[in-house]
Amino acid sequence: MNERFDRGVAAIDGLGGGYQAIFEPMADVAPDLSRFVAEFAFGDLYSRPGLAPPQRQLLTIATLIALGGTDRQLSFHIGAALHVGVEPQTIVETIYHCLAYVGFPRTVNAMHTAKEVFAKRGLLPLKAER
Amino acid sequence: MNERFDRGVAAIDGLGGGYQAIFEPMADVAPDLSRFVAEFAFGDLYSRPGLAPPQRQLLTIATLIALGGTDRQLSFHIGAALHVGVEPQTIVETIYHCLAYVGFPRTVNAMHTAKEVFAKRGLLPLKAER
Amino acid sequence: MNERFDRGVAAIDGLGGGYQAIFEPMADVAPDLSRFVAEFAFGDLYSRPGLAPPQRQLLTIATLIALGGTDRQLSFHIGAALHVGVEPQTIVETIYHCLAYVGFPRTVNAMHTAKEVFAKRGLLPLKAER
Amino acid sequence: MNERFDRGVAAIDGLGGGYQAIFEPMADVAPDLSRFVAEFAFGDLYSRPGLAPPQRQLLTIATLIALGGTDRQLSFHIGAALHVGVEPQTIVETIYHCLAYVGFPRTVNAMHTAKEVFAKRGLLPLKAER
Amino acid sequence: MNERFDRGVAAIDGLGGGYQAIFEPMADVAPDLSRFVAEFAFGDLYSRPGLAPPQRQLLTIATLIALGGTDRQLSFHIGAALHVGVEPQTIVETIYHCLAYVGFPRTVNAMHTAKEVFAKRGLLPLKAER
Amino acid sequence: MNERFDRGVAAIDGLGGGYQAIFEPMADVAPDLSRFVAEFAFGDLYSRPGLAPPQRQLLTIATLIALGGTDRQLSFHIGAALHVGVEPQTIVETIYHCLAYVGFPRTVNAMHTAKEVFAKRGLLPLKAER
Repeated sequence: MNERFDRGVAAIDGLGGGYQAIFEPMADVAPDLSRFVAEFAFGDLYSRPGLAPPQRQLLTIATLIALGGTDRQLSFHIGAALHVGVEPQTIVETIYHCLAYVGFPRTVNAMHTAKEVFAKRGLLPLKAER
Repeated sequence: MNERFDRGVAAIDGLGGGYQAIFEPMADVAPDLSRFVAEFAFGDLYSRPGLAPPQRQLLTIATLIALGGTDRQLSFHIGAALHVGVEPQTIVETIYHCLAYVGFPRTVNAMHTAKEVFAKRGLLPLKAER
Repeated sequence: MNERFDRGVAAIDGLGGGYQAIFEPMADVAPDLSRFVAEFAFGDLYSRPGLAPPQRQLLTIATLIALGGTDRQLSFHIGAALHVGVEPQTIVETIYHCLAYVGFPRTVNAMHTAKEVFAKRGLLPLKAER
Repeated sequence: MNERFDRGVAAIDGLGGGYQAIFEPMADVAPDLSRFVAEFAFGDLYSRPGLAPPQRQLLTIATLIALGGTDRQLSFHIGAALHVGVEPQTIVETIYHCLAYVGFPRTVNAMHTAKEVFAKRGLLPLKAER
Repeated sequence: MNERFDRGVAAIDGLGGGYQAIFEPMADVAPDLSRFVAEFAFGDLYSRPGLAPPQRQLLTIATLIALGGTDRQLSFHIGAALHVGVEPQTIVETIYHCLAYVGFPRTVNAMHTAKEVFAKRGLLPLKAER
Repeated sequence: MNERFDRGVAAIDGLGGGYQAIFEPMADVAPDLSRFVAEFAFGDLYSRPGLAPPQRQLLTIATLIALGGTDRQLSFHIGAALHVGVEPQTIVETIYHCLAYVGFPRTVNAMHTAKEVFAKRGLLPLKAER
């Protein structure tokens, strides 16, 4: 459609797939929603210089943990973090880091989601923590 | 039981059903809960003059999106909005409107819930957005 | 800058001022932030057809109440609601409506904010509720 | 491992089981997470003098209701409350109490969770409320 | 006005004052708001049997901490807890208890609020914790 | 007191001061609170390998933005981020990144807080964004 859209789609494509599963169902209800994601979330924000994709994925994970109730997105962004080269253990450490700020329930829920993503990709058991 | 209760039940009945599915399971645990909903939420608040049911349904949907984790209620109130004459597209626009204030994850989750409600009622695909 | 920006600025201007107080301090820190507000929040979302400005202002107020901790924005959007012709009592009714969904603390806090906005504009006391 | 851990595990054991179901899946992903729960949440905090386990369970339930999106934990802690001698009706009253502060959606969701826990333990119907 | 209102006002009066400071400003904006607090929050909910006022105050404090952004209410309810006979140290322990569930920021903010209430009443320094 | 405490205090000291302002007031109310921060938040979590202090500071900022109502902590952690070598513009980019996930109000509030921290340190105006 336009430069922002194209840039956003390229950024999403760089995250390795799984994205369609979130937005495809909305095609016949709210088609502009996936356009806004592409144009604004990824074309405007994600494509800004200054933060590399691995950093952005970890920041996204931290934000989603604090919000709560965002399993769908957390699952996608953990997978995307792996795709852009983040080590599983770094994702786990990011979830641990949130513990001090959001408490155990949301942190534990996020770790369950991470485990599901890791399991689907055959990454378990992770290497020892230390 | 009393005037507030009767007024509240009438208001709930005006929303077109589906309400029992939320409160019936509580009859043998917390019977006063559905009474409070009828008396206070609908008899005291919803029945106040100044806002018509379609307006109230859209405000409720916006509030539930911002809260997050309220699929049960969101599903009911989207259906109720349709019942009191709100167009599906107006519900979709209300969800879009929340995007600026609550971000993509909660907005996308709400759009999924709206799609499910629309699909059950055979309303898909919606007419084009513009 | 572009059509989206111009459309957004026009939409913001239609809300009656006070907006600069929120974004002016960011000019030397994050100038793109007010651009994103203009382009995306107002140029893309607020300018969509289907919901009139008074409706959008009430939905925004409901969303901000549910979020909590958004006095700065709530104050602006209550003033903007008045500017686009919403009656003070309708704003009060919108806040009452949220009570069932978000509980007393956030509702009471929002009513305090509304009172401050009304007081500054010499609107108090409001006409009787019924 | 150490005194804090042992004290925490003893406190968890006093809550009657069901705890493993939450943390066992994390053994091959984030083994330190259950250690932190034992050492910090239960060894440091829960074991402090001044609040008895029944009181702590009710406070936990209130906190989880307000957070929202914590069914997994709410379900465990309602069961644990029963185990340490809290009457089902007192749990129900605690959930009712939260209604004024968090509104109907989160309160109703919590009552659903309580019902499920009560049902699994054959406690339904509860004795009349008054 | 009615039995529920009278019962609620009696319950509020039992909390020792300070309540007017929250609701008096709303008399010329939303007079029904304080009526709803009296009738519903205190006349219907707080007056239910099964939980004594000290227990209710601690549950309220826990709920407000988890919500965040409720200093006005937290300050009132900590003072009310003291008024109904809760020891300052028990309030402090209640705040500590929330730490595991809501994390440090909201817990630390609540402890600041508690300190302010204690200081105004000449209760500092508290007796040693153990 | 112990190894965890010492490790935590060292980690806090590495963040450059300002920390006392948050916890000193609690010395006569809840002295164990700052001990828990040192031992658990910093001694156990922050000191884990796998994430460097600059990364942890940005994750903390993202989490605090999503929580909302945490100005006190946000102000400290933005200052600490600067102290461990994060560029002001990287902090600004982190705040922008959160916009897609938490919406404008919390993001704008965080940018205000960042501006205050930058202003106190004579860092304004920041260099141009691109």
